Amino acid sequence: MTASLPLGRFITLEGGEGAGKSTQARRLAAALAAEGLPVLRTREPGGSPGAEAIRGLLLGNAVAKWDGVAECMLHFAARREHLAATIRPALAAGMWVVCDRFADSTLAYQCFGQGVARSVWDGLAELALDGLRPDLTLVLDIAPEAGLGRVLERAGQPAGAGPDRYETMGLAFHQRIHAGFRAIAAAEPARCVLLDATCSQAAVAATILAAVRARLLP
Amino acid sequence: MTASLPLGRFITLEGGEGAGKSTQARRLAAALAAEGLPVLRTREPGGSPGAEAIRGLLLGNAVAKWDGVAECMLHFAARREHLAATIRPALAAGMWVVCDRFADSTLAYQCFGQGVARSVWDGLAELALDGLRPDLTLVLDIAPEAGLGRVLERAGQPAGAGPDRYETMGLAFHQRIHAGFRAIAAAEPARCVLLDATCSQAAVAATILAAVRARLLP
Repeated sequence: MTASLPLGRFITLEGGEGAGKSTQARRLAAALAAEGLPVLRTREPGGSPGAEAIRGLLLGNAVAKWDGVAECMLHFAARREHLAATIRPALAAGMWVVCDRFADSTLAYQCFGQGVARSVWDGLAELALDGLRPDLTLVLDIAPEAGLGRVLERAGQPAGAGPDRYETMGLAFHQRIHAGFRAIAAAEPARCVLLDATCSQAAVAATILAAVRARLLP
Repeated sequence: MTASLPLGRFITLEGGEGAGKSTQARRLAAALAAEGLPVLRTREPGGSPGAEAIRGLLLGNAVAKWDGVAECMLHFAARREHLAATIRPALAAGMWVVCDRFADSTLAYQCFGQGVARSVWDGLAELALDGLRPDLTLVLDIAPEAGLGRVLERAGQPAGAGPDRYETMGLAFHQRIHAGFRAIAAAEPARCVLLDATCSQAAVAATILAAVRARLLP
């Protein structure tokens, strides 16, 4: 028996706080839809009812501090649920899935940021992903000082949400995450593209679309 | 550097629905305390603030069906948190920890009951437990028809809570769990004692105390 191969394409956006991932995921999904491609835009942690319930635990401030391994397990539990309920069915139906954060975020935040052993991430990835990896990962690069500045600005707006648990974790934590995302992009150049996220939204969107065309469109 | 060994004793109670685990955990904790031993009674899923929050997801009915691997990961995330916040500190302080359900329940419910691969349990146990196993596991054995009857009786009482998500999962599921607990007890006789849980509460409590005396008390 051979496993059925995903027919769609799986694109993830990664990066630290305030890098513009959500904005760029929206723009990319719209651009792909404008090409006539079937697109599903989703996000992590979350993206399905069970996974969104776990998101509430992880990003809320009701539990101030989790054991690092437990926190990794929660992220991968949400991811497994998201894959089963949302991502795999969409790929099997031939859709282009654009996902705001995926497994690289757990590696950057929990391993690089919080000091959890890489072997924990490896073990959980093996159990949760069944070998599925993104076809393309866009790593939005911005210095944490600038990214966190954007987050604070957003939080100060009348309609802005307050900062979540990770956003409040301090500059040194976010500097380790920033270095982590750069290391991930450098280690897997066939999958990852590191992009300067300090330019205008339109310029970043154009760079992203160029990368998608070069790597995934015929 | 050598890892510090737990100074206390770790006793778990396992079994299907309505086997009387909670009642017997209370009685055992009281009996040990009456011997002058420092005792902590706790339970899973839960036993610490973070783990209790995960318990709410797992036992509540808001998410009707989890992916099986995701459900295992949630149980082990809660367990890891419970170990870090509650069980390990108590053992390190020399306490006798009496825990209502532990890792065997995940093996029985998710692997035997829901069909998750044993290798998933093995992988998560390795990541979550750092080699910690109970000193003694009391497996309370009762036919699922009888155990579920007790649960329904409890739920029908004025102060009774309604059945949780697992309690409503059907007889065939609970029969697989029952067989699972028996297999676990048979596979690890040095750690596990299989007890007839259909007798009176006092008789079961006496059998449990005799097992604890024989195995753990000097």
